[in-house]
Amino acid sequence: MADTLELLAQKLRDFAAARDWEQFHSPKNLASALIVEAGELLEHFQWATEEESRTISQQKREEVAQEMADVLLYLVQLASALNVDLGEAALKKIEKNAERYPAHLARGSSRKHDEL
Amino acid sequence: MADTLELLAQKLRDFAAARDWEQFHSPKNLASALIVEAGELLEHFQWATEEESRTISQQKREEVAQEMADVLLYLVQLASALNVDLGEAALKKIEKNAERYPAHLARGSSRKHDEL
Amino acid sequence: MADTLELLAQKLRDFAAARDWEQFHSPKNLASALIVEAGELLEHFQWATEEESRTISQQKREEVAQEMADVLLYLVQLASALNVDLGEAALKKIEKNAERYPAHLARGSSRKHDEL
Amino acid sequence: MADTLELLAQKLRDFAAARDWEQFHSPKNLASALIVEAGELLEHFQWATEEESRTISQQKREEVAQEMADVLLYLVQLASALNVDLGEAALKKIEKNAERYPAHLARGSSRKHDEL
Repeated sequence: MADTLELLAQKLRDFAAARDWEQFHSPKNLASALIVEAGELLEHFQWATEEESRTISQQKREEVAQEMADVLLYLVQLASALNVDLGEAALKKIEKNAERYPAHLARGSSRKHDEL
Repeated sequence: MADTLELLAQKLRDFAAARDWEQFHSPKNLASALIVEAGELLEHFQWATEEESRTISQQKREEVAQEMADVLLYLVQLASALNVDLGEAALKKIEKNAERYPAHLARGSSRKHDEL
Repeated sequence: MADTLELLAQKLRDFAAARDWEQFHSPKNLASALIVEAGELLEHFQWATEEESRTISQQKREEVAQEMADVLLYLVQLASALNVDLGEAALKKIEKNAERYPAHLARGSSRKHDEL
Repeated sequence: MADTLELLAQKLRDFAAARDWEQFHSPKNLASALIVEAGELLEHFQWATEEESRTISQQKREEVAQEMADVLLYLVQLASALNVDLGEAALKKIEKNAERYPAHLARGSSRKHDEL
């Protein structure tokens, strides 16, 4: 069974090719589209308290899930356009963060790594 | 072998738990952190022409990959916090887009679905 | 004495002209640069509680003020590029909001106007 | 005659007070609302070429002006909430940029100041 990220990448390449949309899908444009969707995602939470954001309704959760999907779809397309292995990059970033934020120093703190 | 998205979700849950960071990871905060990273991603392309954004150097590509990883990591954590199946949401969104953007109408056009 | 928005617009036009930067200042690029700065602004608050964000240190306040300045400078340049009267647009938007959010209906509510 | 930025600040303080909205207007929330509007602004240009973004229709220009107004209104409210003099901060930032980007070095270049 295909990995979800690879399956999405393949489907999105086919989707764009069938519509002749590669011409619009420069990394510059994809990064713009991604942040626009990230804004639509944040809009759902902008006036909510943190606690309210943890306990949203089922309907709101489905709307939020669609915005999250949009972000992921542009991210996957950007990875294809730049020939980046997104899963590998994410796994490497977790390792880097583990070095920058040792558990015993970072516990319970929201400070940046260079302020720990 | 685990699906990459599921593997990332598991690793990130362990990472946050070991640092007692769940308290900071409200959906409101995660959506904010995500768009901040999306801004750092876009910053790499803001003054580039579209053509330049398609032909970046290897060094730039690695910097961009790290920003993309950051976006994905927050997206996966937000999905965990809200109990959203990110892969399923993305696959459903592709199907929805296929209905909204029929290939014969959307070919070569960057118009929105309600303007096709 | 010149209006601050007009003074900023004039200074920024001179600044860009002296550096031959008008070529980079397409509305597309300026809107990208603006949101990148808006991300740097939000970064200061992403892990803070709302209460903490109301009571930041003097040093943090100065850093935040610089990010706010960056947002304003790109906004003013975008207005120049598109020949938009920013002050007039803002005053008109306040009037429109007054119609959409009548005080007696909107009091103490964070709902959107179409949900009041 | 009042300076436009001061006039906007006063009108927005009255507007929020009449609706008892100060409770929602933490700097954290205002910075979130600002970037959400910045996303709506960028959405107008995300698939446009730079050239197209310079030559938008009158109708599009009015829509864009409204998004720009939204950004400015949140920026002015954030300045009030943090007691920041926005105009002064912007003028200081222009001076700082003049030092970081000397005209003879920066002419025709989109590089960052630390790469000049």
